[in-house]
Amino acid sequence: MASVDLNADLGEGFGVWELGDDAAMLDIVTSANLACGFHAGDPAGLARTSRAAAERGVRIGAQVSYRDLAGFGRRFIDVAPAELTAEVIYQIGALQALARVAGSEVGYVKPHGALYNTIVNHREQARAVAEAVHAVDPDLPVLSLAGSVFFDEAQRLGLRTVAEAFADRAYHADGTLVSRREEGAVLHDPDQIAERVAGMVHSGRVLAVDGTAVDVRVESVCVHGDSRGAVNIAAAVRERLLRDSIELKAFV
Amino acid sequence: MASVDLNADLGEGFGVWELGDDAAMLDIVTSANLACGFHAGDPAGLARTSRAAAERGVRIGAQVSYRDLAGFGRRFIDVAPAELTAEVIYQIGALQALARVAGSEVGYVKPHGALYNTIVNHREQARAVAEAVHAVDPDLPVLSLAGSVFFDEAQRLGLRTVAEAFADRAYHADGTLVSRREEGAVLHDPDQIAERVAGMVHSGRVLAVDGTAVDVRVESVCVHGDSRGAVNIAAAVRERLLRDSIELKAFV
Amino acid sequence: MASVDLNADLGEGFGVWELGDDAAMLDIVTSANLACGFHAGDPAGLARTSRAAAERGVRIGAQVSYRDLAGFGRRFIDVAPAELTAEVIYQIGALQALARVAGSEVGYVKPHGALYNTIVNHREQARAVAEAVHAVDPDLPVLSLAGSVFFDEAQRLGLRTVAEAFADRAYHADGTLVSRREEGAVLHDPDQIAERVAGMVHSGRVLAVDGTAVDVRVESVCVHGDSRGAVNIAAAVRERLLRDSIELKAFV
Amino acid sequence: MASVDLNADLGEGFGVWELGDDAAMLDIVTSANLACGFHAGDPAGLARTSRAAAERGVRIGAQVSYRDLAGFGRRFIDVAPAELTAEVIYQIGALQALARVAGSEVGYVKPHGALYNTIVNHREQARAVAEAVHAVDPDLPVLSLAGSVFFDEAQRLGLRTVAEAFADRAYHADGTLVSRREEGAVLHDPDQIAERVAGMVHSGRVLAVDGTAVDVRVESVCVHGDSRGAVNIAAAVRERLLRDSIELKAFV
Repeated sequence: MASVDLNADLGEGFGVWELGDDAAMLDIVTSANLACGFHAGDPAGLARTSRAAAERGVRIGAQVSYRDLAGFGRRFIDVAPAELTAEVIYQIGALQALARVAGSEVGYVKPHGALYNTIVNHREQARAVAEAVHAVDPDLPVLSLAGSVFFDEAQRLGLRTVAEAFADRAYHADGTLVSRREEGAVLHDPDQIAERVAGMVHSGRVLAVDGTAVDVRVESVCVHGDSRGAVNIAAAVRERLLRDSIELKAFV
Repeated sequence: MASVDLNADLGEGFGVWELGDDAAMLDIVTSANLACGFHAGDPAGLARTSRAAAERGVRIGAQVSYRDLAGFGRRFIDVAPAELTAEVIYQIGALQALARVAGSEVGYVKPHGALYNTIVNHREQARAVAEAVHAVDPDLPVLSLAGSVFFDEAQRLGLRTVAEAFADRAYHADGTLVSRREEGAVLHDPDQIAERVAGMVHSGRVLAVDGTAVDVRVESVCVHGDSRGAVNIAAAVRERLLRDSIELKAFV
Repeated sequence: MASVDLNADLGEGFGVWELGDDAAMLDIVTSANLACGFHAGDPAGLARTSRAAAERGVRIGAQVSYRDLAGFGRRFIDVAPAELTAEVIYQIGALQALARVAGSEVGYVKPHGALYNTIVNHREQARAVAEAVHAVDPDLPVLSLAGSVFFDEAQRLGLRTVAEAFADRAYHADGTLVSRREEGAVLHDPDQIAERVAGMVHSGRVLAVDGTAVDVRVESVCVHGDSRGAVNIAAAVRERLLRDSIELKAFV
Repeated sequence: MASVDLNADLGEGFGVWELGDDAAMLDIVTSANLACGFHAGDPAGLARTSRAAAERGVRIGAQVSYRDLAGFGRRFIDVAPAELTAEVIYQIGALQALARVAGSEVGYVKPHGALYNTIVNHREQARAVAEAVHAVDPDLPVLSLAGSVFFDEAQRLGLRTVAEAFADRAYHADGTLVSRREEGAVLHDPDQIAERVAGMVHSGRVLAVDGTAVDVRVESVCVHGDSRGAVNIAAAVRERLLRDSIELKAFV
């Protein structure tokens, strides 16, 4: 039976501020990318979300970021590699303790926001992140974009790399994502998105904007949960996959 | 042969800012209370100090604090117990990862600054900190003040409590410290301080300001390293103890 | 014709995080207590809310706070008076520049959260805040609780003090607020609250929980806007006051 | 009589952490670039340095920065222009209030660290900073590098631009600075540096690394004060200029 992992960014509030509906999303996804305090996530909130994830058997991942609460980790910072490595180790460790106390563990690492995008190409920072993960635990998988420099560096260190596809993003024929600045970059119709994800999982392919069928490796599908609409889309994807007898489970 | 632990606060810079001479102090002490990022300590600096401690065989402790970089953790914050517990777990976990990567581990926990002072009496926060340590690892000792409410709460959870004495502080007849606001609260002469510490270790007693001999449990002696003078005092204490054939080693 | 000021806390998001509906509230209130970056409020968000307030002719006030993003300024911090004074000057100045660029100005100062509550009784911090306001501009009014130590200190410096009443809070017979921990401390019915506020403005009195009529000085009424329900209550208060021919305008 | 301004970065501690010797430098320079809290500078420290500057008649400038305490403002951050504009307004306003309370005022604006370097070439961020200064006060001069895109944008808005030279840096024949990564980029000998600065002021020229005489516009000379050696160099420059009958005074 085919299976796939659904991942989403959670634990992204900070103190009094909330973002998204963690409880709703934890009933949908199989892997939760939890913030680690650098772009979002206060310890008490992360403890609550860790417990909620543990109770539902949802795998916890460390969503590591630049240190940038004011920018939610969405701005490139030209941080020196040695500092970035230490910052990623710090973040993973902090979440590991919270996850363990919640009866779970950190099962993988996923870079967040501008760091995610930067290390698709920026070799020094990519290596810094890969080295951090490897130093903490060489058995920790990393979740990111197939073909990225980050995966290249991670594989050189022997880390397991888990490629993700995006449920709601348009693809170019070469497998890269259409920039959010372009028309049609983001899909909004829940049924269309669910259909598309089911297709990806069944066929390993997705139709690019020019109609070409593109190979997409689908070990995990990223869904969003930061708005009511996003939660509905995520739920539609889940429903559709289950209807197609695709098992939803965290990657191993 | 008598033995004692010497502990000091290290890793208390932040980014470009330095505080104290970590390298010099690591040649003197047997236990290093490393900041965890909440009152001081950026990850790269903590990584460096962790490595330096590991190389010298100095035990690493987590010096947990209120979240207060601007106040260096020296101001009481009326944080809710559940939040404090999560914040302490977060800090210990972050340092655990850095310490492990450096080839060492977090061997104990010591509260910092206003948190240290507060939980001498503040039961809710004392319990919150004790629960955090216990949740991370019930085998982690805590280092603090004998007779504190914190030790009471820690012992109720089965944590090992390690009492420390202060090398350079005057004591009242009841074993409490003379307030820094009072004349003569802090000793400054290296020889006098070294003599005093040697006396504490040998006899388990120290002369209070009124001349009474006070019992002080001395499993660890806290020395400071945040100024040139402080480092000299710490060195004098070390010299004196070695001359008296007192072994310097981390508590077990 | 009777008139009253309606004030609410606005500008309390931070970066990606939003809190309340500033646009809706700016159509209701006559005075906007804008955060200044210490408990909430990033500069770009404050610039936007300042412009929106200026466009609607809503007076801008500086809502100064302890430095505590993680706790939203709701936790007492034992900050030294000289530091608190400098922090309040810093916050007022920062908002003054943003307000001026938006074509408005800072018309008053209101302490936020734990600082508000603390300086009802804590004389040293109360004086520190009053001195900060006076140092920036002795013509800046302060908005807070009648009878507070803060007002005492402010008046000693010659500052104008503007007393506020709370639309949705129950009062004791001595004019103090019923603690939020007690049953019935917070009112929830929009019509009842609107009725009550209209009564306060007309009569200068409000019924305490024991049925006593309590004098309340009402130069300004504080309404909340941090939830959909809160906005509806604020709108109901506004409607009711207008229906009663009470003019809504910022205090002078 | 020839005259020149000497400027230095001051107020760059944060809480317990100190950097440089502000008191010593205030006896040397005529303009003090004070941090504004984003890369350094807590309000109480800034208040103290503002008072000390005011007492000595040293002009205060706002040293505005990216929001980056952990990186001391030395790392490029890809912040959106509208956010950068608001952040610069916020910083200038905060320091304006502190300076006024100290009996002085903010007399100019100088970008700090990575922001300084970035807007030599980055037009969007350069414009964002220029617009912020202009919005706060179109009469505020900006202090930076001649020929920079920042000066271009500032001049388009009608701001007065004040070019600075660097006392201790080697120049290329085209007037740009030799990168710190290259040998000989930074001069260390106090007498040589003093001689060089005197030459710049007298002749408007400096010898480049290839021996070419380069035109340098010298309205202000930047000296450093972040180490004992740096203070000695700054003092030597001051002595030399006075000996050469060059008046030291803030630019107008």
